[in-house]
Amino acid sequence: MNQKSMSDDQLRAQLQQLEEEFAAHKAAGLNLDLTRGKPSIAQLDLSSALDGVLDGDFVASDGSDTRGYGGLDGLPEAKHMGAQLMGLAPEQVIIGGNSSLTLMYLYLMHCVNFGPGAGGGPWRDSATPIRFLCPVPGYDRHFTICEEFGLQMINIAMTDDGPDMEQVEALVAKDPGIKGIWCVPKYSNPSGEIYSAETVRRIAALAKTAGPGFQVIWDNAYAVHDLDETHAVTDIMPIAETLGTADSIVFFASTSKITFAGAGLAFAGGSAATLDSFRHRLSMLTIGPDKVNQLRHVRFLKDVNGIRELMDGHRQILQPKFAAVQQHLHDGLGNLDLARWTDPAGGYFVSVDTQPGLAKAVVELAAEAGVKLTPAGAAFPYGNDPKDCNIRLAPSYPPLEDVNRAMQVFVTCVKLATLRQQLT
Amino acid sequence: MNQKSMSDDQLRAQLQQLEEEFAAHKAAGLNLDLTRGKPSIAQLDLSSALDGVLDGDFVASDGSDTRGYGGLDGLPEAKHMGAQLMGLAPEQVIIGGNSSLTLMYLYLMHCVNFGPGAGGGPWRDSATPIRFLCPVPGYDRHFTICEEFGLQMINIAMTDDGPDMEQVEALVAKDPGIKGIWCVPKYSNPSGEIYSAETVRRIAALAKTAGPGFQVIWDNAYAVHDLDETHAVTDIMPIAETLGTADSIVFFASTSKITFAGAGLAFAGGSAATLDSFRHRLSMLTIGPDKVNQLRHVRFLKDVNGIRELMDGHRQILQPKFAAVQQHLHDGLGNLDLARWTDPAGGYFVSVDTQPGLAKAVVELAAEAGVKLTPAGAAFPYGNDPKDCNIRLAPSYPPLEDVNRAMQVFVTCVKLATLRQQLT
Repeated sequence: MNQKSMSDDQLRAQLQQLEEEFAAHKAAGLNLDLTRGKPSIAQLDLSSALDGVLDGDFVASDGSDTRGYGGLDGLPEAKHMGAQLMGLAPEQVIIGGNSSLTLMYLYLMHCVNFGPGAGGGPWRDSATPIRFLCPVPGYDRHFTICEEFGLQMINIAMTDDGPDMEQVEALVAKDPGIKGIWCVPKYSNPSGEIYSAETVRRIAALAKTAGPGFQVIWDNAYAVHDLDETHAVTDIMPIAETLGTADSIVFFASTSKITFAGAGLAFAGGSAATLDSFRHRLSMLTIGPDKVNQLRHVRFLKDVNGIRELMDGHRQILQPKFAAVQQHLHDGLGNLDLARWTDPAGGYFVSVDTQPGLAKAVVELAAEAGVKLTPAGAAFPYGNDPKDCNIRLAPSYPPLEDVNRAMQVFVTCVKLATLRQQLT
Repeated sequence: MNQKSMSDDQLRAQLQQLEEEFAAHKAAGLNLDLTRGKPSIAQLDLSSALDGVLDGDFVASDGSDTRGYGGLDGLPEAKHMGAQLMGLAPEQVIIGGNSSLTLMYLYLMHCVNFGPGAGGGPWRDSATPIRFLCPVPGYDRHFTICEEFGLQMINIAMTDDGPDMEQVEALVAKDPGIKGIWCVPKYSNPSGEIYSAETVRRIAALAKTAGPGFQVIWDNAYAVHDLDETHAVTDIMPIAETLGTADSIVFFASTSKITFAGAGLAFAGGSAATLDSFRHRLSMLTIGPDKVNQLRHVRFLKDVNGIRELMDGHRQILQPKFAAVQQHLHDGLGNLDLARWTDPAGGYFVSVDTQPGLAKAVVELAAEAGVKLTPAGAAFPYGNDPKDCNIRLAPSYPPLEDVNRAMQVFVTCVKLATLRQQLT
C-alpha cells in the first residue's frame, strides 16, 4: 500500500511494524559493509596466477630486464595493453604504479604547480580563482583532490547521456577560470551512465571555448566492466584530434578491478604535449614504475581477448549481487514512491535517491543496524549533497547472502526514515 | 715518473704517448657505461625467487588479503622489516611503492605545499626564501627535487665524518629560512663516508637552533650495503627522542639495491607527528601501496638474517669490481699526483677528484672513447661543481671485464686531460 494514501492510524501501525522490523535487524548483531567498490575475494582469485606467471623469465619484448631500474614510460607491451583499454595509440600511453588515483593526483599537482602541457602556465599563478566542473553524483576521491589543491568545485547535473552539456558549455564559455572537468565516461561512478556519442563530442570541443590549459580528466575506470552485454563509450581522442583539442584530454585507467585491486597497473594517456610535460614531472620523482608487475600482467592477460575472458569471470560473480540489489529495491520500495535508483549495465555501484532530506538519516539507521554504507553526501563536492537524498550502494565485496541481508536492512531503513519524517 | 718533475720535451713525449693510447681506445669502438649505481643482472638474479614465492597464499599476518585495496601503512610484517633497516620502531614506519625517491619527492611536496608535521606551516608561505643544506658531492636526484620546488641549495663541505658540522650549525643558527638538510648517513653518495657518532648527535640537535619545521632528510639508502665487513651508522632516532627533536628527522630507505632495483619496496619513517601528517597527504593520492609485493619481500627475505645473507651475495659480486677500480686508479694514477679518490667500504660509488678544472674534459674524453661517465658536476646542486674536479664512478652494473676496460680508458683520459692542460 502506498504510504501517501494511508490514514494516520494506518501510518502509525505501519511505523510500529517498521520499528519492530528495525529492532529485529539490530538484534541480529550484523556487521556488513556496502561502502566501497572493492572486488571480492572470489574475484581476486581469478587472477591468482599472476604471481609466479613469469617463471623466471623477466625479460621484456624490448630486451630489457624488468627487474632493473628505468623505463619511465613502462614496457612497450604494457603500453600496448593500456592503449587498447583507453582507445589510444601505444605512444599516447604511460604506465604508473598500482594506482590511477596517484597518477591523477600527480597530474593535477603538475597542472597546479607547473602547468599542463596544453599551456596557460601554472594554475597556481592564475589571476582569477581556479574552478573545476564536477558532474554529480561523482567519485569522492576526485573531489578530495580538488579540495587538496584549492580548486573550487561547481556541481554539474547528470543526465542519462552524461553531464548536462548545456550547463557545462555555458559555464566554460563565460568563465576562463574553469580549468577542467571530471569525467567517468562509462558507468559513471556512482550513477552508471554511459556518456552518449553526442556528449563525448561536445566534451571534446570544450577546449575551443574554454580558457587556456583547460583539461578534461577522462577517468575510464570501468572501460571493460560490463555487467550484462558489452557496451562501448565513444572514443574521444580521434574526435579531439579532428577538432584540434587533443591536448585538453588526459586519460586514466587501471587494472585494479581487472586483476588485483591493490597490485594492478595504472595508466595515463594523452597527446604528445600532455605526456611530454607530465613525463618531465614524473622523471623528477621516479626512475620508473614496477616493470616486473607490468610483465606479469601482460603475460597473464595476454591481450584484449584475455581481458575479455577475465571480465566474463568477474561478471559471473558480480551479476547476481547487482541483481539481488535490484530485487530488494523493487520488492521493498518499488510501488511505494519512496526512492529512485539506478539499474546500471556495468561498473561497481547502484545510486539511490531517497526523498529529500533523508539520506543521512538512512545511513545512520543502517549503521545502527550493523550495515555500513558510504557516508551520505560522499558523492558530492565538499561532501555536501544539497538535497541530502543520494546514497551509493556498493555490493561487490560481500558474499551474495550478505548482500541480501544488508539490502533487507537497507529497505527497512529507507521505509522507516521516510515514515518517521512523515509523522513529525 | 711524476709529470711535475719532467722537462718540456719529456712532457711532450709523454703527451704523444697518451694521445696514441687514447686513439687506440677510441679505435676499439667501446660502448661502456659507468654512469649509474645500478645492480647488475647477476645481482638481480639473487632475488629471482621473489616472483612466485607466495605460492598462492596472499594472506598477510594480520589476516588481510594483500591482493585487495587498502592498508595505507603497509603490512605489519613489512613495517617490521623496514624498522630494522632504518633503526626505528615498526609504528614509526610506512611502506610506499617501489621508489624511495617518490616518497622523498612527495614528502617535500607535502612540506612545501602543506607544511611538515613538525609545524611551521607550508614552506611556500614563508616570508623569507626557503633554503636547503646540501653536503657535496651528493646525490643528484636529491638536488633536482630542491630545484623542482624552488628550494635554494647551499653547498656544505664533506669531511671524513660527514657534513662539516661547524658550517652547518653556523648557518642553521643564523638563518631561519634554512628548512632542511640532505643526509646519506652511511656510504654517502657518492663519496662513501659513514657519518661519525658525533656528527649524528649534532645533526639530531640541529632543530633546537633551527627555524620552525626544520627537516633532516635521512636517506639511509645504503644501510646494509657493505663491501667488506659490516659497518653501522649510529641510530639517530633514539638521540633525537632524547633531545626532543624527533619530529625533525624523516627517514627513507628501500630494497632497490637489495632485491629488484625497479620492483622493490620503499620505506618512510619518522615520529608520530611526522607520519600522521604525511599519512594524511598520502591518503589523498592512494588507497594503499602494492601489498602483494610487500608480502613477497617478507616471505623471500624472512628477516634481518635473510637480508644479511642476501647482501653477502651482492658483496661477492660487487667487491671484485670495486677492487678493480682501486687497482686501476692506484696503478695508473697512484704516484702521479693527478687525482684523489675514495676507497669506500660500501655503497655504490667511487668519487674521484681530478686537478681543478678537468672533470668536464675527462668526462668528454671518456665519452669520445666510448665510456659513458656521469656528467661532471652532477653530484653538485644546479649541476655546478665549483672546482670542476669531481667525477662519480659507478662500477656495479657492467661485468668485471668491462669495468677493467672502462677503467683503462678512464686512467688514460685523466692523464691526457691533465697533461693537455699543463702544456697549454
